[in-house]
Amino acid sequence: VQRAQLRPAVGLIFFVLSLPMKGDNKLRISIVGTGNVATHLAEAIAQSEHELVYIISRDLSRANQLAERFSAEGKTDVKLTELDIDILIFAVKDEALKADFFQNVPKNVILCHTSGSISMEVLQGHQNYGIFYPLQTFSKQKELNFQDIPICLEASSKEVMQKLHLLASSISDKVYEVNSKQRKALHVAAVFACNFSNLMYQIANDICIDEELDFDILRPLIKETAAKVQEHRPYEVQTGPAKRNDLKVLNLHRKYLEKKPDYQEIYNMLTYQIRKNNEEL
Amino acid sequence: VQRAQLRPAVGLIFFVLSLPMKGDNKLRISIVGTGNVATHLAEAIAQSEHELVYIISRDLSRANQLAERFSAEGKTDVKLTELDIDILIFAVKDEALKADFFQNVPKNVILCHTSGSISMEVLQGHQNYGIFYPLQTFSKQKELNFQDIPICLEASSKEVMQKLHLLASSISDKVYEVNSKQRKALHVAAVFACNFSNLMYQIANDICIDEELDFDILRPLIKETAAKVQEHRPYEVQTGPAKRNDLKVLNLHRKYLEKKPDYQEIYNMLTYQIRKNNEEL
Repeated sequence: VQRAQLRPAVGLIFFVLSLPMKGDNKLRISIVGTGNVATHLAEAIAQSEHELVYIISRDLSRANQLAERFSAEGKTDVKLTELDIDILIFAVKDEALKADFFQNVPKNVILCHTSGSISMEVLQGHQNYGIFYPLQTFSKQKELNFQDIPICLEASSKEVMQKLHLLASSISDKVYEVNSKQRKALHVAAVFACNFSNLMYQIANDICIDEELDFDILRPLIKETAAKVQEHRPYEVQTGPAKRNDLKVLNLHRKYLEKKPDYQEIYNMLTYQIRKNNEEL
Repeated sequence: VQRAQLRPAVGLIFFVLSLPMKGDNKLRISIVGTGNVATHLAEAIAQSEHELVYIISRDLSRANQLAERFSAEGKTDVKLTELDIDILIFAVKDEALKADFFQNVPKNVILCHTSGSISMEVLQGHQNYGIFYPLQTFSKQKELNFQDIPICLEASSKEVMQKLHLLASSISDKVYEVNSKQRKALHVAAVFACNFSNLMYQIANDICIDEELDFDILRPLIKETAAKVQEHRPYEVQTGPAKRNDLKVLNLHRKYLEKKPDYQEIYNMLTYQIRKNNEEL
């Protein structure tokens, strides 16, 4: 539990000092999947000191297409008995993570998945396994710098953790050791921080559309709100009528939202929560 | 209503073409107030081609303190009968905006306030008046580039609008004409986009504290979520278990939140809204 609180730099120094000094630390990696996470991960690994060997998918043409971009090889069979690789990463949908996928993978290969909500135990039929969970919202439209993406690791043994750390720290500056219980909580927290704040943006956008206002008027505000909590705790930088308990403005807003009962209900509930945090209630 | 949808650049060109060509377009500005908005605004105006003349506050030492930073003059009396200025901006709390403040200001001076929720009519006892509403979340701790802050204008006449536009476009690239009804809606939208998304960050932070997780793990996600909607509509980039109707994960999350009934209720309501938008319900 302590470890997850270590600053990445400290974790990295600790890790480097504890590494057995081998001549060659170049790992051979393969990825199962061709979606958003698989694509961004493949790109980051291909640019690292390690080697991206295979892209594996049930759909061979997709596997080939993605593999080609990084001079890797496309494969369609995950039941590989002679994989000459160190780590096999399953970057697939939760539903696709099934135990029988892994049964023929050589024992020395480390198996890991990238899911925030599936426990590590799904892989326990295998000898060496772990979690390689990049915490970010991925979309095909947008370029991402993997260096800034936190990677949360969990492993079946200390040796496995060392290898996963070696890979993770070569593509990201932010590597954390996070156990299954913490990872599950982190996934819930991420829903609030990402999916729900995006819903707030959407409601704001809907109000703009109703009033024939350009959503651009709100975009700098959204950017600054997210920028503020990069340095501060959210509680310290809360502003607005609920925070300052401005009942007059709160009532004006509630009245405005009468024509949108769903949004009014959300407004009331979240206002209540801010006032409660502020001990006005 | 149409005007608010004009891109700032187009609005600016339209405005420049419609300007009467005078030799000197340098405006003399004064600000009432010494809070966050007053401070950031004073700084921006002092750096513009226009002149910041007076900072006015009931508290003379505060007025002097702020005025000194910009080679302006501090004053304590707002009932000024011989103000040789063009525009007087009230950047004060909503409660402090009272009609009797303005009664002795010379008629030719344009009076305006910076509030998102107070209508323009509070100033109608005066001859020339308007709204100068910068839409941003201001805090003393953080430097802001005013050039990126949208300024929403409303005016009692075309001539007043021209002068407000001249000032606004000298300190910001983003100037919009927004009527009182639109401004009120914008203020509600801003509560969702800023105050409520910050509450979502805070809930995420609380979960991290509970699990002894470093909030830094979530900060890049928050930044990227806000960055995505700078180019896209929020609806287009929504992700997560509610969006993909992943009932298994939704149930896991609800169960995790059982120990925090307030947060569970918020989770349920916002999940419902995302699914409804997505026509799953």
